[in-house]
Amino acid sequence: MNREQLFENIKRKQSFLCVGLDTDIKKIPQHLLEEEDPIFAFNKAIIDATADLCIAYKPNLAFYEAHGVKGWIAFERTVNYIRENYPDQFIIADAKRGDIGNTSKLYARTFFEEMDVDAVTVAPYMGEDSVTPFLSPLPTAPEGEEKSSRNHWVILLALTSNKGSHDFQLTEDRNGERLFEKVLRKSQEWANEEQMMYVVGATQGQAFEDIRKIAPNHFLLVPGIGAQGGSLEEVCKYGMTKDCGLIVNSSRAIIYASNGENFAERAGEEAHKVQQQMSSILETKN
Amino acid sequence: MNREQLFENIKRKQSFLCVGLDTDIKKIPQHLLEEEDPIFAFNKAIIDATADLCIAYKPNLAFYEAHGVKGWIAFERTVNYIRENYPDQFIIADAKRGDIGNTSKLYARTFFEEMDVDAVTVAPYMGEDSVTPFLSPLPTAPEGEEKSSRNHWVILLALTSNKGSHDFQLTEDRNGERLFEKVLRKSQEWANEEQMMYVVGATQGQAFEDIRKIAPNHFLLVPGIGAQGGSLEEVCKYGMTKDCGLIVNSSRAIIYASNGENFAERAGEEAHKVQQQMSSILETKN
Repeated sequence: MNREQLFENIKRKQSFLCVGLDTDIKKIPQHLLEEEDPIFAFNKAIIDATADLCIAYKPNLAFYEAHGVKGWIAFERTVNYIRENYPDQFIIADAKRGDIGNTSKLYARTFFEEMDVDAVTVAPYMGEDSVTPFLSPLPTAPEGEEKSSRNHWVILLALTSNKGSHDFQLTEDRNGERLFEKVLRKSQEWANEEQMMYVVGATQGQAFEDIRKIAPNHFLLVPGIGAQGGSLEEVCKYGMTKDCGLIVNSSRAIIYASNGENFAERAGEEAHKVQQQMSSILETKN
Repeated sequence: MNREQLFENIKRKQSFLCVGLDTDIKKIPQHLLEEEDPIFAFNKAIIDATADLCIAYKPNLAFYEAHGVKGWIAFERTVNYIRENYPDQFIIADAKRGDIGNTSKLYARTFFEEMDVDAVTVAPYMGEDSVTPFLSPLPTAPEGEEKSSRNHWVILLALTSNKGSHDFQLTEDRNGERLFEKVLRKSQEWANEEQMMYVVGATQGQAFEDIRKIAPNHFLLVPGIGAQGGSLEEVCKYGMTKDCGLIVNSSRAIIYASNGENFAERAGEEAHKVQQQMSSILETKN
């Protein structure tokens, strides 16, 4: 999916919500444990209940890998289910990968070829040659096919939502540039806003103003609303652009709204609340 | 495995070699493709041919994930095979993970509980709460059992072997401290040398001298010998401590020494050459 298609979906659905599929077997309703694949059964119900209200899904790989082979199967089934039933959804593999060139290339192959997701989150610490393999055209793209029609994205960690973000990301260099600002600036030499987004935690409030000075048009993936305490209003006040420019993620507050039989219905209700807020913000901004 | 056991193995085997199991289906001998699980078949043969000559194995997860469920199975079988047949080997899951606390905790569970590896490589960008979950005692450790008997390790990226390491890792702050130095210093508040190691690329030469000023006793995991061009002599000159303090990895130069029927034998020969070099360095140093 390209940038324009993403913005079209946001306008049509009046939502820039991403539902985080951080599916933890210890938190899902008891009755699902009888299913043959409880993680997928949970995801499927959540997806069906929220697909009209969001524009993206973000499974976090950690939650799937924790179950080894079974988890990996649940992840594949989830991606395939979304692709087949809700092709307008943007799928983010929240994997936070990044390794030397030949290795990052393999991760890229995994997520963009084996799995057919739209975007992968990547950690910037190892620099350019750890990130650019995720940006290369797919080797299997048929000759003559436009690169943009098989667009895939890197979502690079910039300023994360956790407390530890202060340890290194805010370190100022000799010119007063903070590390996350250097990441934002430097990485724009590797890809433009048609292929690169950034992770910025909702808990970072006014930092969005500084980020927009360096990356005025890029989409930002914003975790940290809900369980982590970030404010949607503040994020939008400082971070929204004329093309929206935001994908705001909520995981726990939506998917674990209830752990009873009505879990999917309750997830839909919570997603609806967020979508309504988003809709009114989009109206005000336009 | 704890630090003392690791050093005992190094002395006994006169080797501080780690064999990197970066098993790429496109590079393994043709005749193995007929096997039911070619990746595991290759690993098994390589392990049997090198286990006497090395003290650690480091499968890089990217190479396994690239094959989805099949790859994950091959990874599990490889770890189990080493555990059962060569219990004195230190197993490193080269995964370069790191996420918010509740998520890192799941990755820790995956690698230390589901998989029973000794160490995981972790990226430092997200700071303390992304790293410390890998250091916690295992929740399943039987009550009363000493933590040290189930020791597991974080190997934190400090100064990597690739060109992109220059993009952010060398950035100096206002006091002239480079980012990788800050990572080395700050992370020592989270764990000591009994649980933490650092990744330092063999291509970084004299930087080892600076690193030993900040981390005089920690073990360093050193990739970049062989295909990436680093020098074993230089690494040892500047990086070796009285307890060795080095685990030097070689992947491609050993495992792809031949792609004929004799691949395992040739891998053994290459590992033997490196082990001989290591043995003479250890003798000189003591």
